[in-house]
Amino acid sequence: MRAAFYEGNEKIRVGESVPVPPKAGEVQIKVSHAGICGTDLHIFHGHMDKRVTFPQIMGHEMSGTIHAVGEGVINYSVGDRVTVMPLDPCGKCPACLAGHNHICQCLKFLGIETSGAFQSIWTVPAHTLHRLPDQLSLEHGALVEPLAVACHDIRIGEVKRGESVVVIGSGPIGMLIALVAKEAGAKVLIVEINAYRLQLARQLGFDALNPIEEDIVKYVAQYTGGAGADVVFEVTSSAAGAEMMTQLPRTRGRIVVVSIFNQLPKVDLHRIFWRELKMAGARVYEHEDFEKAIQLAASGQLPLDSLVTEIYPLERLEEGFRQMESGGKIMKILLSCS
Amino acid sequence: MRAAFYEGNEKIRVGESVPVPPKAGEVQIKVSHAGICGTDLHIFHGHMDKRVTFPQIMGHEMSGTIHAVGEGVINYSVGDRVTVMPLDPCGKCPACLAGHNHICQCLKFLGIETSGAFQSIWTVPAHTLHRLPDQLSLEHGALVEPLAVACHDIRIGEVKRGESVVVIGSGPIGMLIALVAKEAGAKVLIVEINAYRLQLARQLGFDALNPIEEDIVKYVAQYTGGAGADVVFEVTSSAAGAEMMTQLPRTRGRIVVVSIFNQLPKVDLHRIFWRELKMAGARVYEHEDFEKAIQLAASGQLPLDSLVTEIYPLERLEEGFRQMESGGKIMKILLSCS
Ligand SMILES: [Zn+2]
Ligand SMILES: [Zn+2]
Ligand SMILES: [Zn+2]
Ligand SMILES: [Zn+2]
Repeated sequence: MRAAFYEGNEKIRVGESVPVPPKAGEVQIKVSHAGICGTDLHIFHGHMDKRVTFPQIMGHEMSGTIHAVGEGVINYSVGDRVTVMPLDPCGKCPACLAGHNHICQCLKFLGIETSGAFQSIWTVPAHTLHRLPDQLSLEHGALVEPLAVACHDIRIGEVKRGESVVVIGSGPIGMLIALVAKEAGAKVLIVEINAYRLQLARQLGFDALNPIEEDIVKYVAQYTGGAGADVVFEVTSSAAGAEMMTQLPRTRGRIVVVSIFNQLPKVDLHRIFWRELKMAGARVYEHEDFEKAIQLAASGQLPLDSLVTEIYPLERLEEGFRQMESGGKIMKILLSCS
Repeated sequence: MRAAFYEGNEKIRVGESVPVPPKAGEVQIKVSHAGICGTDLHIFHGHMDKRVTFPQIMGHEMSGTIHAVGEGVINYSVGDRVTVMPLDPCGKCPACLAGHNHICQCLKFLGIETSGAFQSIWTVPAHTLHRLPDQLSLEHGALVEPLAVACHDIRIGEVKRGESVVVIGSGPIGMLIALVAKEAGAKVLIVEINAYRLQLARQLGFDALNPIEEDIVKYVAQYTGGAGADVVFEVTSSAAGAEMMTQLPRTRGRIVVVSIFNQLPKVDLHRIFWRELKMAGARVYEHEDFEKAIQLAASGQLPLDSLVTEIYPLERLEEGFRQMESGGKIMKILLSCS
């Protein structure tokens, strides 16, 4: 079997690796496809060296088939098509005890705190598995994880049919949020500065504007009759996004903070007060979001092919990273791991 | 009759004034007591000159008795004891049509956009009236408005019995929030740097700490078993308060922004994301908050006397302002207006 190893300092080595035998409660998966995530790019750049172990096998968006099952695993058999919800909560901390184990206070994220999916055979706890229906291809199955993020975000944002939604930033997660919001019956506006993403958003049928060229606040006020948007998703982790997110919602409108801010941005708390806005953070997903994502992906209603820019062999992981950071015509790059 | 006029540039003149006859749908109130609010102090300092008209009669926290009723007012009679919910919404804007008329997009606030209560006879729309029960003194009746703010904040914060609440800043509004939270069955911690307010908070039975002397984050983590607080109220409008508010809540805990920020503070959106915190702005009140405040004030369960520092005649308004800004031993100063 092969694996891609992050060896620190932007160095990736692809080479032979020894499969980890499944312990009790674990399964071995023959990985079919694995998506490259912005988080993997952060790891590659050394921003998360405190959380990983060298050499680190990254990757947490994947599809595959069960290769072997450990003792006590009764719900899955060899050959089953699956994806993984890559969370391993402690079960004992206050967050777990309060029922929020997806944001466990000592959460292990598979592919960050443990070995990940950028390898031919991946061993994971069976509790992380979700079955993929036959009509869902393994390529699309590798998109279930980011799609589950979007489903979680839409759920936290309580998006309802007929509501007006603004998505600030349309990388893979922003675009999936827009698609899930549209599927939920919302009217969606995408705000994006990247020309390729703007074009793709329009191709997919969205109203999409560049905030450098258009007055977004005025535009949203106009089409909502002066009210403002019902829900705004901040998916840029930029100071400009943090500024815009409070200016767009209606009175008692909602803001969902989806992106990972590395800086403390300035936030207009007066506007939050004045309009009685509601803001919520949304992180990863829960099992119900995975089920919803699988159902949506399998329904064939989402233009998932448009989101897969390239499918590369494992050896081209580093090339994938370089393309992602070039700001070019990239949405999601999948790795073929088998 | 007499009135206190703000003539701009920190100038107050108290003198004779002509009562305004009540038009259809209005009543004239003989004002008994009126509280001086931080907002009035802002007006005095010229910070709100764009919203007021010179000379401006300020004041929006009051009690009194009906002196005359205009045409078509059938629910109130001369002699009725009342207080005023000082909001005059337009009824036509998107916020009003959505049922949020307390934060109407063209709201007139009585005592800011119109004449206020710092006069012997005040004329207001009858829809603003709330009746005061006999057992509620007119002194305490003048506290209903700020108490309604606190009731609104607790309602927006969805404070439940047994929850742990932290109130950052314990001026009159913060102290009332703490009292209403306690009455709702919450365990309350007050965070305050002013020695007088700390002492008063402790006198009233609260756990109260100075963040300059104590590590509040550690303290809250300890008494919540590492979880964090259920609800945090930011009532300081300071950068330090904006920083602390995100550090204290548990996973999916709530932050209520009550104070009026004049600057854009830095806010830890990463923490909001990481713990899936919920933040909500809470502004003024709705009629049900006034009813709740009147019921609480009339119950005799709240130590309202401890919050009234002085009762001055109208002539001493400016002296009251000077005392409030001295940072001295002041909670609420009432003016006797009759
Ligand atoms: Zn990811
Ligand atoms: Zn846990
Ligand atoms: Zn006030
Ligand atoms: Zn209105």
